[in-house]
Formats: sequence, structure tokens, C-alpha cells
Amino acid sequence: MTDAVFPPSHPFDFDAVRDADDDKLREECGVFGVNGVVDAANFVALGLHALQHRGQEAGGIVSHHPEFGFNSARRMGYVRDNFTSQDVMDTLPGALSIGHVRYSTTGSKGNTAIRDVQPFFGEFAMGGAAIAHNGNITNADALRRELIERGSIFQSSSDSECIIHLMARSLQKGIPERMEDALRRVEGAFSVVAMTRTKLIGVRDPLGVRPLVLGRIGDGWALSSETCALDIIGAEFVREIEPGEMVVITEDGKIESRRPFRQATSRFCIFEHVYFSRPDSILGGRSVYETREAIGRELAKESPVDADLVCPVPDSGTPAAIGFSLESGIPYAMGIIRNQYMGRTFIEPTEHIRNMGVRLKLNVNRALIRDKRVILVDDSVVRGTTSRKIKEMILDAGAKEVHFRIASPPTAWPCFYGVDTPQREKLLAATMSEEEMRQHLSVDSLKFISLDGLYRAVGEAKGRDAGCPQYCDACFSGEYPVEPADMIAQGFQLKTAAE
Amino acid sequence: MTDAVFPPSHPFDFDAVRDADDDKLREECGVFGVNGVVDAANFVALGLHALQHRGQEAGGIVSHHPEFGFNSARRMGYVRDNFTSQDVMDTLPGALSIGHVRYSTTGSKGNTAIRDVQPFFGEFAMGGAAIAHNGNITNADALRRELIERGSIFQSSSDSECIIHLMARSLQKGIPERMEDALRRVEGAFSVVAMTRTKLIGVRDPLGVRPLVLGRIGDGWALSSETCALDIIGAEFVREIEPGEMVVITEDGKIESRRPFRQATSRFCIFEHVYFSRPDSILGGRSVYETREAIGRELAKESPVDADLVCPVPDSGTPAAIGFSLESGIPYAMGIIRNQYMGRTFIEPTEHIRNMGVRLKLNVNRALIRDKRVILVDDSVVRGTTSRKIKEMILDAGAKEVHFRIASPPTAWPCFYGVDTPQREKLLAATMSEEEMRQHLSVDSLKFISLDGLYRAVGEAKGRDAGCPQYCDACFSGEYPVEPADMIAQGFQLKTAAE
Amino acid sequence: MTDAVFPPSHPFDFDAVRDADDDKLREECGVFGVNGVVDAANFVALGLHALQHRGQEAGGIVSHHPEFGFNSARRMGYVRDNFTSQDVMDTLPGALSIGHVRYSTTGSKGNTAIRDVQPFFGEFAMGGAAIAHNGNITNADALRRELIERGSIFQSSSDSECIIHLMARSLQKGIPERMEDALRRVEGAFSVVAMTRTKLIGVRDPLGVRPLVLGRIGDGWALSSETCALDIIGAEFVREIEPGEMVVITEDGKIESRRPFRQATSRFCIFEHVYFSRPDSILGGRSVYETREAIGRELAKESPVDADLVCPVPDSGTPAAIGFSLESGIPYAMGIIRNQYMGRTFIEPTEHIRNMGVRLKLNVNRALIRDKRVILVDDSVVRGTTSRKIKEMILDAGAKEVHFRIASPPTAWPCFYGVDTPQREKLLAATMSEEEMRQHLSVDSLKFISLDGLYRAVGEAKGRDAGCPQYCDACFSGEYPVEPADMIAQGFQLKTAAE
Amino acid sequence: MTDAVFPPSHPFDFDAVRDADDDKLREECGVFGVNGVVDAANFVALGLHALQHRGQEAGGIVSHHPEFGFNSARRMGYVRDNFTSQDVMDTLPGALSIGHVRYSTTGSKGNTAIRDVQPFFGEFAMGGAAIAHNGNITNADALRRELIERGSIFQSSSDSECIIHLMARSLQKGIPERMEDALRRVEGAFSVVAMTRTKLIGVRDPLGVRPLVLGRIGDGWALSSETCALDIIGAEFVREIEPGEMVVITEDGKIESRRPFRQATSRFCIFEHVYFSRPDSILGGRSVYETREAIGRELAKESPVDADLVCPVPDSGTPAAIGFSLESGIPYAMGIIRNQYMGRTFIEPTEHIRNMGVRLKLNVNRALIRDKRVILVDDSVVRGTTSRKIKEMILDAGAKEVHFRIASPPTAWPCFYGVDTPQREKLLAATMSEEEMRQHLSVDSLKFISLDGLYRAVGEAKGRDAGCPQYCDACFSGEYPVEPADMIAQGFQLKTAAE
Repeated sequence: MTDAVFPPSHPFDFDAVRDADDDKLREECGVFGVNGVVDAANFVALGLHALQHRGQEAGGIVSHHPEFGFNSARRMGYVRDNFTSQDVMDTLPGALSIGHVRYSTTGSKGNTAIRDVQPFFGEFAMGGAAIAHNGNITNADALRRELIERGSIFQSSSDSECIIHLMARSLQKGIPERMEDALRRVEGAFSVVAMTRTKLIGVRDPLGVRPLVLGRIGDGWALSSETCALDIIGAEFVREIEPGEMVVITEDGKIESRRPFRQATSRFCIFEHVYFSRPDSILGGRSVYETREAIGRELAKESPVDADLVCPVPDSGTPAAIGFSLESGIPYAMGIIRNQYMGRTFIEPTEHIRNMGVRLKLNVNRALIRDKRVILVDDSVVRGTTSRKIKEMILDAGAKEVHFRIASPPTAWPCFYGVDTPQREKLLAATMSEEEMRQHLSVDSLKFISLDGLYRAVGEAKGRDAGCPQYCDACFSGEYPVEPADMIAQGFQLKTAAE
Repeated sequence: MTDAVFPPSHPFDFDAVRDADDDKLREECGVFGVNGVVDAANFVALGLHALQHRGQEAGGIVSHHPEFGFNSARRMGYVRDNFTSQDVMDTLPGALSIGHVRYSTTGSKGNTAIRDVQPFFGEFAMGGAAIAHNGNITNADALRRELIERGSIFQSSSDSECIIHLMARSLQKGIPERMEDALRRVEGAFSVVAMTRTKLIGVRDPLGVRPLVLGRIGDGWALSSETCALDIIGAEFVREIEPGEMVVITEDGKIESRRPFRQATSRFCIFEHVYFSRPDSILGGRSVYETREAIGRELAKESPVDADLVCPVPDSGTPAAIGFSLESGIPYAMGIIRNQYMGRTFIEPTEHIRNMGVRLKLNVNRALIRDKRVILVDDSVVRGTTSRKIKEMILDAGAKEVHFRIASPPTAWPCFYGVDTPQREKLLAATMSEEEMRQHLSVDSLKFISLDGLYRAVGEAKGRDAGCPQYCDACFSGEYPVEPADMIAQGFQLKTAAE
Repeated sequence: MTDAVFPPSHPFDFDAVRDADDDKLREECGVFGVNGVVDAANFVALGLHALQHRGQEAGGIVSHHPEFGFNSARRMGYVRDNFTSQDVMDTLPGALSIGHVRYSTTGSKGNTAIRDVQPFFGEFAMGGAAIAHNGNITNADALRRELIERGSIFQSSSDSECIIHLMARSLQKGIPERMEDALRRVEGAFSVVAMTRTKLIGVRDPLGVRPLVLGRIGDGWALSSETCALDIIGAEFVREIEPGEMVVITEDGKIESRRPFRQATSRFCIFEHVYFSRPDSILGGRSVYETREAIGRELAKESPVDADLVCPVPDSGTPAAIGFSLESGIPYAMGIIRNQYMGRTFIEPTEHIRNMGVRLKLNVNRALIRDKRVILVDDSVVRGTTSRKIKEMILDAGAKEVHFRIASPPTAWPCFYGVDTPQREKLLAATMSEEEMRQHLSVDSLKFISLDGLYRAVGEAKGRDAGCPQYCDACFSGEYPVEPADMIAQGFQLKTAAE
Repeated sequence: MTDAVFPPSHPFDFDAVRDADDDKLREECGVFGVNGVVDAANFVALGLHALQHRGQEAGGIVSHHPEFGFNSARRMGYVRDNFTSQDVMDTLPGALSIGHVRYSTTGSKGNTAIRDVQPFFGEFAMGGAAIAHNGNITNADALRRELIERGSIFQSSSDSECIIHLMARSLQKGIPERMEDALRRVEGAFSVVAMTRTKLIGVRDPLGVRPLVLGRIGDGWALSSETCALDIIGAEFVREIEPGEMVVITEDGKIESRRPFRQATSRFCIFEHVYFSRPDSILGGRSVYETREAIGRELAKESPVDADLVCPVPDSGTPAAIGFSLESGIPYAMGIIRNQYMGRTFIEPTEHIRNMGVRLKLNVNRALIRDKRVILVDDSVVRGTTSRKIKEMILDAGAKEVHFRIASPPTAWPCFYGVDTPQREKLLAATMSEEEMRQHLSVDSLKFISLDGLYRAVGEAKGRDAGCPQYCDACFSGEYPVEPADMIAQGFQLKTAAE
């Protein structure tokens, strides 16, 4: 639990013991902060619980109290298991607090050491500061090398730690100003929630790749990755922090908006609409659920098929499947049932358990499926391993036909902006055409929504603006709005003109 | 963990720390057994994992190996956390194994001691036997007193322990015969899976109140509370064990059917269709999911209402809501989103967490609900506490109207056959009419399915046969097919002719 | 932790992971009880802590409170780790309490299941009782078979459980009377502390093999295996319970002495003087420490040797070494230093750790030992494995001569009265003469105290009365005062006239 | 466990739950390192186990393997509980390893966060390094302020972390050279063991306040705080590292001795002889045990008294008590028995347990002590709280007279060189004369060894050289060989000429 493994780390095969159908892109982090409320850490715990889908491996909370100073608790595991007991919460006093949930970072995939768990804290000459970061810094390797050269000592393998070291070395006097300094050196995607002894700070990178919203609670303010976490604490959703904006909120509730970065065109992550964000969150003024239903409708228009049932691949395919059913008139049904008592990992499971794979989590509703032509709606296809197993289960149960409809375009490129994606070679769509994928999965038909269709569903009536895309869709298009410098240095090949 | 608290137990207020919206009837147990397979305990673990919805507090597995004898592991918590590691499973060798998951028993509600966790084991003169029991013995108190009088020492507070003591004192030579002896003394509901050194045994009480099914796996056999657990181990569903039937399965795969009890008319628990069983299980030849969809359709016919959306109360209201939508043509939508990272209990939570109640688990899809007339479909109303909170959340989110449709008749009577129900006074329907409940919940309309409607939905075209009901529906009708002797002794009032 | 392994148990090689120099006879149990004090369980915890040397594997406490009834906590591990926190002790209310520490029982050596941890509890028709037993029942197998035949269900593999089943079946009305009934059926060694809802009971077997003492604390009474546990709670030592005596102490502090057994001659275990009891306990009116010093003096008289230093094998050889030094005039010195941070067992240690053996615990004081003629005084030689390693360490450190002096006669026979001894074949003295042992250990001289010398040291001026020995010395003499019936049935050969 | 509490830390009263008789000066650290052996971390674990008396709160090990890089494990608790399992040790591969055991640091007394556990690691431009430090840096606060000013981020509250930050900022190319740079900035006491990817490094401060020895094992080398840890791994004691010496040991076993500091006169801590070091370690060519025996002899010469028994206060008073007995001819006896099953702390103990204090650990051998005139020999008197309780226990047991003889001079000044001492006001000898202390303890006589007597016992035949003392004896004399700059800045008053 408390081991610190220094890079290059010991090559344990942690993947082998992961949930067998872990075949999704994974958002890597959620951030939350609040000020102006009694026992703020309690609110942060609730907010993080509502953001747990953005990171399940670990969580941390920092709070500040005028008398007791900064305090922190960082733990492996779920928020609900770590941050609900009086014991722990008593150690986090004060009216100002921030927190972080985390899937895994660039530094130590699948082997999260406690030292990699955020928020990170730094003691500066003028007082301490803590930061929580959602996103990914694309020039972190270069920054790290430079900082080490100058005598900084890194304690984690996280890219986010660069920010706190850059702040420590800034010549500015105030902490918010040091943060501006630091973030101007940083490239990539970042939605940051930070705190000093008195201030709550929120920043989004110039492109606004990751979400960050502002809420009001009593006389205090909240910052959150998504609106669903405002709901749980009873905060009112005020507005999104704008791309390139920094808000500095003082103890007495004053809020100041700054613009530390050069102006840029917004490129919000379109996959937040497809999968990452919770369906009850609001993005662009509409519930994510409705957008996903619209994606399903769009998909039904683009790729209709005659069938008996529309079934979601639970749970992420559900809203799109409902949309597909509404548009197509084909009845919606729960053909696959999810076991609610599955967690994500097993500790040293038996061979037998390991071989069960997705069957531990999903079961086909055999009596319902038998002799039916079934449309399966899923949010995405990553490696294709789960899709294949699900298809087999459906056929074993006696389905006559299986048609896959996917609520996103083919995922052909890795994300370098805070999402855990396999290497490009392992993405099914990177090496196969749609028809090849259909054959690979051995299904009667397989259709992805088009990129334009997806843009329409998220509200861009004219579809994608190829010259200046309204979203970051690099995972589909290979067009990276920020050059992934570290990855290129490691040999990653950008899309060529020919592709 | 390993404390044994002898009755009368120390009065900790465990209820206070339960999940705040624990407003459901709870099935108390699931049972599973298998023979004729290598490392049978692995199969039992998988089966119990699939039956986890029938009992989440604890689980246990017993196995037998010719060389290593009987071995057992019993643990608090989920199957997936306790029975997946090589470490534990290595201690359970052999080709014959049974297991049990448990919610809580009559003896120690909310304070399950490890000694109450089944299977129970007894060493008899001719060898040992282990039993796992789903149901409830209605004359357990009387039997217990009698057995203690004669020198038996009880180790648990469970009603099920009577069976093993009755077996120990039987004058029969064989263990199956001793079991027949014992079960003939027992009143109430019981589906039992048991094992000797060589035999796997399954029994259902004469009325067949609780389910028990038989499956085939290779040359071996499986017994399970539900068919969904046969699916997970790849066993083929053969048939239901019949009410009043005992099957004795030998090492070499021979299966013998016995009839130890006087003939009776079947009274299967109708609530298994409504809520307890998993939607992908098969009851009476049809998937439970389809039955629930049919309940929703029936409900839409009986109690239509003009509205904009049909929303399930997640997750148990989902199939009925889909049925209601299909029948009524009103669009189905997920207006309430469930947090997937909720467990059931918190250890010493802060005041703040405790007050959150259902909001920790459910959030309203605000953007979707605003200004809509919403039909909420739930499976049942027990105390009404959760229904009330959900209504408030929906109204807070700006719904124009809220209409509750309930997929079961009013729950007005406690169950004494293996289901955890509040005392009668706490059942909303025990003290209020439908209209009073509507006012209590402050909703625009509230309708329950009729008892006849429910019977039609489960396949009885003519509805309920009042003279000889086809199911046990005591929780709705107050007509108890087996007299609850212990409860009457404690002062419980049966329904009077006037009621 | 909570696994129950039914006999025949799974053959894990727990011995392999035991402390490598576990080369001692082991007392198997300590018992303690107190009444008439507020929060009696706290006193029991302290008493058991002082008796921890009599059993380190597990401990248990039962208490009774008029309102909360009987409560119990049983745990693996040390008293200090399990029974000191407010959390646990709050679950054990009441003014009457008993407890037990345990090494391991006949039933499950090295694999103590929590179900084998005492006190055992039985609910009888007239109320419950709990018992804690130090000793061993030599006809337990036969009793167990008989009880099972009649329908009793055993929950543990402990011989002590027979007592509670015999009590359950007694036709007597009162619990003390049922206990008399039960103990009259039992053969072997037993010092029992028991409690009902109101009474504290102590009994010693007719021969008084194991110790049991009575103390006074305020208006209450305490029963303890040794006086050192009276000291820790501030109780005054009143007297020993006599062989064959039963004391029944009522709530209002009245104490009644009964004599349930036929008269017999006392045969107290002489090894309690040599090793089992704590040096600060009082046996026969003298501190055990003084007796051991006297043994050392006696040994110096019987087997003098010219040398530079007398060193104890820590820690049990210390008092005898001091006595040897005082008698011989050879300076006493700590030639071997014990690491105070050693516990008894390792969980899955590395090969490297396992091979360290005794060196993990003991280190030779090299600078002191070099070029010296050293007398090593140890309490006993069992398998001889540790003696051999110690000799090697001493020689490695440069000692010129090594002379072993042993404060007990050769241990040539197993104990069946509550002591964990290896099988006879593994006792060095069972197969070798003193000279053979000296050669086997490769030391310059090896001398054991004579049996008469030992008797003199414990105060029998004329030595052992061969016709009617004053003590049980079966481990030295092979003369068993109670026939070990179960062991004989298993093939154990009693000493023949020829031996 | 994994909480990081940033200073000013939350003021939990951890002291309240410490072992009640924690009335000793405490060595704060032990260090160990080895190279040139397979699985070096195993050797380090054994070495740290042998050094556990130098620090019981936590331990850490770092190893390096050419393929797997640096790995580390840091844990709260004993070495034997944390670093013996295959699981943990497998994560620490390689032939080069260092480790550290720790009592508590200046930064977080009694509230050790895992982040304060050494070895500390820093990644530099030319590769990583890990350091383990025994001692205390007396200008750490000033260094820390300066480093933070320049942008270093401290992760712990430990003074030792300064060293690694100074190394990170050094302009030297090689790591040993950076270490020289860093240590020249540091004041106070330090024995450091460090490692790079290929080198094992040992350094002692110019005065050589803390010990550090060199050993040979096969083709490899070991560095250890004490020789007893060389014994356990089978290494041969070669020599002490000299005050002001740095040894740099390469992979191929070459050892280079450097002298990075200005020449100074050695001032080894004399309290290592009195209490800190293990009796089987060798200091100055003689076993510590023999030195302590000599202290006892010297004490008997200086302060004889007529009595019946000489008893040690266990366990640290034992060798001096033996010496006192040998010199005086008064018989040595164990009048106080130590419970071997005591650990150091309790988690939230009951009031009852808390009030027990020293009686949980020590018991008087009542039968032995009664009516005797007893000389109690202890190593030191710090607050006097334990001495007082022991005296009471002895008198309660019926002793006629109690004479304390203390094997060190009055401890009147705190140590700032790596020893945990109370504030000056709490030291009994800081405010009372010997006679006042005698009255305070209510004993018949109380005598401390003289400072000259102590010097004679450690081998300085002429006693202390007042002009240029051969040892650091600041805790007795108030003469601090290195100015405690940080403490003076905090208001500590040095001894005035008048005192």
C-alpha cells in the first residue's frame, strides 16, 4: 500500500488481474473543490463520490483550517470506502478543501503508488498550495528533465507534479501568479483545481479539452469536473469555467476571472459526450443523456437494420440504445444483464475465475434473446475483445442475427490528453476497415456513427467543420490540437497527409 | 469479525448505519451446490456470485475431498471479495461442494455474526453433513426450545440450525433419511441444498415457496436458487425441483427423486417474479424480465395517465417501466441516474454522509426532467421513505407532474418465509389507503397494479383464484399459506375476517 | 481468520513457518475469571495478558450483564492486540467475566480455527454457561464418539467441548450440578473456570495436575492459573484451589467449596516449576524464580565443572544459571543476547529468513565469549535442535569449551495433560543416553539434573518418593498418573517394566 | 497509514496512547547497507531486524537492480512484520541495498507519516540516489528555509531531507561528490548510508557522534550502525568508519576512503555505551555488555550500600546490576519480571488499560522481595516517572529498603544529535539535585555514577578530560560539541558559565 516504486518500476503484470472486459477508454481523473462551507472536506468527499466514474483507483483530499493548517488524506480505492468515516474526516478540518479521484497516470499504469495520488502539495516561501489536475501534460518529460537538471526532486511519476515544481521556482510573489507562470510553461490538457491557505482556484487550458464547472453553495463556491457533483452537494450550477480562464475565489466569496493564456479556439473533448461524463451531467446546456439518445437516433438514421430487439451493452450503451429504439420503432429490451456486485479487480484470482472474463459481469437474458434478431448498441469499440465475447454469448443464447451499432466513430488513435488508451497497434480500428472489423467480430452487421453524425448529435447542425473542428476528436480523426511532444520524442508517428 | 454475541445480543444500533434508502423487501438467501466437477468450490463461488442479489451480508462454502475431508470457509461480505483468490479456494478441495449467500437471519438482524453464516455443518456418527437453507422455519422457536431441553447446544441464532440438530437426533441410519425426518418436523418455507461425503441433496418445502432448480454440467449436477447461476458456470438448465420433492444425487451422477412430505398445492412466492429473482433467470418457462415487462404493460392498461416521460426508479423498476412505455407509447427515459459506486453500508459515517440518504445513490437527470410530466415506475412501496425522497428530488429538478406506478399491489403484510420485512406497522400500505398514500407522498397520482393484474402478468390468464390462490401472495393479501406459529406466539395478529 | 476447517483437516505445513527454534514444551492454556467488579472483562483482559506465556495463539473473553446477557469476543493473536481497545471492551459489559488464552489444542495443532478458541458457551434450558479449560481430557475421543452417537453436534475440534455437551445432557437442574456431572465423566487434567449468569466457578481435577488459584479483589473474587495474574489486577492471593475441589462463587460474593470427586493423592505438574509458570508466580508458597535458582544450585552441586563463565540460554535458563553461578562461584554473564523484537511466526517468509532459524532471535556476545570456557544453562532439551545451533554459535564466536547444564531431567516421554510435546520418537532423550546426546550435540560436557535433585529443589528434602511420587513427572519418568486412554487407543505404548 | 499531514499538523494527542512507562531516551535511527550479495534486500532486512532497538516506529529498504532500477518499500511497524514475506522482498531485487529503522524524527514526533520514513530517494540528472541517516542536523531549519526560497519542495518533515535537496542542487557531476558538497553544508550528527545505481556509500560526521561500522561478507561489503547487525548476516566486522570519513564502495568491491571535512577531534556519544547500543555490539574493541558490567562495578565502588539483593530494572539495567553484584558480593536476583508480550503502543485503549501503566509490563517477584533490602540498578533516570512507579511496586511487595543505583550521571540536558529527549524542564535532573531527586522518588538512597566514573568504565583510565572531553556527554554536562543552531533560534538557552 505504502510502497514507493521508483521508475523504472518493477514490471509486475497487473493487467493480468484486471477485470477481464476492461475494454474501454478510461477518463483518468476527476477534480472537485469547495470553499466557504463548514467542514468543506465532507462536501469534497461527496463531490468525488459523484465523480467516481472518472477515476476509481485512488482518491485524495486536502483541506486547510486556520488553526490546524493543511491536512491531507490520500488512499487507494473508492471514495465511499475511504472518505466517509468520522475518523478520517475529522483529520480534514476547515472551510476550504479540494480533492481528486484518479484512474492511473502516465507514470505508473496499473501500479498506482500512493505517492502518485493527488492532490499534490508544495510548501513555498509564502505558504503552501495544493493542486488537483485532470488532463495530461504533453511536454511533461521535457519539463521534468529540465527541473531535475536544476535540482528539483520529484516524488511521484505523475506528469502533474511538474506544475507544483514550476510554481516553486516561479519568481512571482503570489501563489495564483506562480500558478499562471507555471501553467504557461505547460502544454496539453488541464483542468486544475487548486487551493492556498485562503483561496480556491480553478483553471482550464486554452483549448478547454477537459470540463470544469462552477457552482454556488450558500456563500461559498464549488469547482467540479461535472455538474452531477454539484447536484449531490446541493450546489447550484452557475456556468462552465471557460477555456483559458482562471478563477481565483477568496475567503470572503469574491471571485476574480483571469485570462493568463494567449487566446485560442475551444476544442472540448467530444468523447466526454460519448462516454466519459455521467448521463445526468450537463454539457453545453443539455443533459449528456439526451445527447447520447440523440446519438442513438442519428445512428438509427444512418445505419438502419431490420430486427426484433434493440439491446444496450450495459451500462454505457443504454441511452444510445433507447434513442435507436425510439427512432427505429424496434422495441428496446435488456437482453444482457449486468451483475451489480462486480468490482474492477481481483487479487490473485484462481485460474478458473480469470478465465470467466466478461461472464462474471454480464449474462445474456437467454429466454428473451432466443430466436431473435438482435441489435446491440455499444458506445465504442476499443480493442474489440469484449465485443467479441458478447457476440459469442448472444449467439450461444440462440439469437438468430447479431447487429452491432456503435455510438462513436472508429477509435483509431490514442488520446494524449488525460485518457487511458491502448497503444495505437492495439486499437482495432487502427488496423482494420469497418468490414474487416465486422468479419473479425463475426457479426451480421457492424456500423459506427459517422464523425459528422456525431457532431450533429452533439448539436452542430452542419456537422464537423473540417477546417476548424469544434471539438477535439483526435481519437477518431488523428488530428491532435496540441502536439504530443513527449510522445513524438518517444517515436509516436503523427498522421501523414496520405492517411 | 469473529465475535460471537450470544442472545440476547448487545443492542448496537446497526440500522442507523445502513444504507439510508434501504426501503425494499430483501430476499434473505441464495443456495448453490454442485458435484462431479474438479474443484467444485470454484463453481459454487461463481454460482453464489450470480446469486449475490439474494444476500449480500455474508457467504460460505463447504467442500468435501476424499483425502482432506470436509473443509469450509465462511466470510462476511461479497463473494467476489472472499472467494476468488487462490489462497482461499485452495483450502476447499474436492468434487462436491455447496454454498450459501445470506442477507440476515431472523436471529441477528443487521448484526450477522460469523457463526450465523451458512452452510451449517454437523458431524454425525455415520459421517458429516452440511446444509444451506433458503427460506424461513416458522416453528423454529418451538423446535429450538425442545432441542435445548434435550441437550442440544446451538451455536448460532439462525432458525436453520434446527435442521442440523434434528438430523443429529434422528434414529435413521442414512443422512438423506435423517434429513427427511428433520424436515418433516419443520414448518415454513425451505429450499435446502445439502451434502454428505458423497451425496448432493436438494429439497423444496411442500408448497415450493422458494425456488430451486436443477442443472447439468458435464457428468455432474448443479442445484441453484435461480437459473442465472447455472448460466455463469455453463450448466444447462434441466428443470425446477418440484414442491415437496427431494433429489439425492450420488457421486456417480445418479439422481433419485423422493417425496418425503404429504401432498400439497404449490404456492410459489409471487414476489420472486416482482423483485427478488434476477431478470435473466427463468421462472415458469419465461424470463423474469419478460414477466416484469408484462407487469408494466398490465399496469399501463389498468392505470393509464397522460405524461411526457416514463422513468424507472433504478434499477428494479426498469423492466416494468419499459413495459409501461411500450404499452402506453409514452417515451421511456432514464430520468434518475444511479451511482454505480455505491455499496450498501458505511462504517461509522459522518453526520453529513448519513443525512445524504438516497442522494448518495441516485441523482435526477435535471436537464431532462425540467418542465416534464413524469411517470415513475417502481417495483414496490414498503415504508415509502425512499419514494418520498425520490418525489422530492424530481420536483426539485423542475418536473411539472409526478405520477407513481407501482409494479406490485400494496405491501400490507410482513413475510415470514425468508424475506426481511419491517414490522407490519411500518408498512405504509398497512395503515393507509391508496389515496392516503398518494397524499402522504404528495404526488399527482399513485397507482398499484391490482392483484388480479399481477396474476395475469405472471401468466394466469384468469387472474387470481381466490379460493385456491396459485401463488403465495401473503405480503399483499394477508393470507398465509403456512401458519406463522412463532410469530403468533410473539403476538402477531392474523388477518381477521373483517379485514 | 474465520475459516472453520472440519476434521480431518487440510494438511497445511504450518510447522514450516513457525519460529525456527520452537524447541520447547508448550503449556497449552491459561484461564482467568473474576466477579463483583465493574467492567469485569477489563480485569480478565489484564489477567490474560499476564498469562500470555501459557498460550499465545488466541484468546477469548465472555462476560455477562443482566441487561445485555452473555457477550463474547474470541480472537487469534495476543491479548494486548485484541482486548485493549475501547471498541472491543465495550462489547463485553458486566461484572462477571471469564477468559482463556490458548496455544493450540489436541484437535488442530498449528491451525487454530477461531471456532476452537475458548471460552465455550452453551445455552441450556435454565440459562447459559461458559467454560474455559486448562489441561487435557484423556478420554475425549471416546466421549466425543458417544455424544455424537446421541445427537450432539460438535463445533470445534477441541477436547474441552465435551464438557459443555456433557453438561447440556445432564439431568441435574442447576448448572454447577451439571458441571459436577460432566466432570465426573471426564478423565485427565483439568483446571476449569466457568460462569453462569450469576456464578463464577472454579474446579481442579482430583490430581490437581494444572494450577488454579483464588484471589480477592474488593468485594469480588478472581480465579487464575497463576498468581502473577492476580498481581496485575491488584488482587490479593488467597490460596490455591485444592486438587479435586470445586468453588462456586455467587453474585453477592459468597464462596462455597465442594468435593465432587473421589479422593486422590495430589500430582501437580513438576514442569510448571521448571518452565511453564512465570518466575514471579508463587507455587507452594515460594516464588517460581527461587525454585529455579535452587534447581541451578542443585545442578551445580550434582555436576560441577571448571569454567570461566556461566551463561543462561535466554530467557528461560536465566534463574537456574544465576543459581548455578551463586553455588559454583563462577561469574554469571549474558553470553547470548536475545532480540526483543522477535515474535513467534512469520507469514510466508523468504527462504533466506527461514534459514536463519535461531539466529533471528539470539546472538552471541562475541567479544565476551572469545577464548572462554562457557557453561550454558538451559531449562530443558526437547528435540535438541536449538541446543545444537546454540552450541555452534558459541563455538563460532571462539569459545574454548562448551558445557551444557540442563535444569530438568531428560525429557523422554510426551505429556498428555495439556502440554504440547512432540511425538516420543522426536524427543532426543527417548532414543539416546546422556552420553549419546553429548556426542550428538558435540559439546564438552552435558549434564541433566537428576530426578531426585529436581524434587529436592522444589522442596522435597528427601527427593522423589518412588512408591508414591509427589508430582506428575511423566515426561521424565514415563509414569502416567492418569491412563492416557485415547492415546493408547491410537497405539501409544506405555513404559514397560523393562524400561 | 498513508495519510500525509502537512505541518502545522493536526494536534492529535498521540502521546496519550504511548506505552505508559516510556521513560527513556530513545535512539532515533539505525542504518544498514550491503553490496555484492544476491538479493541484498534480504540481508538489509536482517540487519535492520538486529538494529530494531534503534527505531521501532517504521522501516524502509531501497534496492537497485540493473534491469528493474530502484525499488523501495517503506512501512510503519517492525521489520519482522514488514520485511520477511516473499511478497514484499520480491519487489526489492538487486545486489545493492540500504535500509533504515526509525523511532521518530524532529518533524513529526509520535505521528510518523509514511512520507517521513527513510531511505529518502532523489532522481538527479545523472541517476538516482537513496540515503539513510542516523543523527540529527542542527541547522536543518535554516537550510530548509533557504532551499524552499529557491524552489525546492519538501515532501517530509524530516531534517534528513535537506541532504537530498542539497545534493540535487550541487553543481558537482558525481553523486558521491554531490554528497560531499551537501554534507559540508550540514551541521550536527550524521552517520549516513547511501547508494547510487552502483555504489554503496558510508559517511560519519567530523565528530563521529553516531556509530557506523564496516563489515565484509563474501566479496561484498556491509555498513551498519552496530556490529550486532553484521553478526546476524554472517559478515565479519572489519573496522569502524572513522569520524569525518566517507567510504565509497564500487560494484566490484573496491573501497575508497575520503576525508571531505575539516579535521576535528572525535566526540562519540557516550550514551551509546550506557543504553543505546545492543550489549552484544562491539564499541572501541570491547563488548558493550562488558562496558556496562564495568559501569556497574564502578558504581558499586563509588556508592556502596549494605543490602540483601541487587536487582536490575529490566532489561536495560541488567549488565550493570550484574557488575554491581560481582563487585559488591551482594547476590544478583531478578526481583522484577518483564512481561515478554508487551509491545509499545495501544490503539485507543480503555481508561482501565491506560491507568495500568508500567504494571502492564513489569511485575515484582513478591515472594522474593518481601522483607528484603533491595538495590535497584537502572541505566538512567529521565523524567523519573517510571522509577517512581517501580519503587512503589517494590514497596507494595514488602521490601524493607529500596536503594537506586543509576548507571549514568544525572541526565540534565536534552540531546540534539539524533536522540529523542523531553524538553529540558521535564528532565528530573534539570531541576533537582541528587538529594531532591531521592526525596522526590522517596527511596532510601539514590546514587548516580559520576561522570569521571563513567569515563573510567568506558576505558578512559584517567576519567574525563575536562578541557577536551573524549566523548559527547552533552546530556550530562550541557557541553554541546556542535552548536544547536535551530534550537537556539527557537529559544533554547545554552549552559551559562554560572551553571
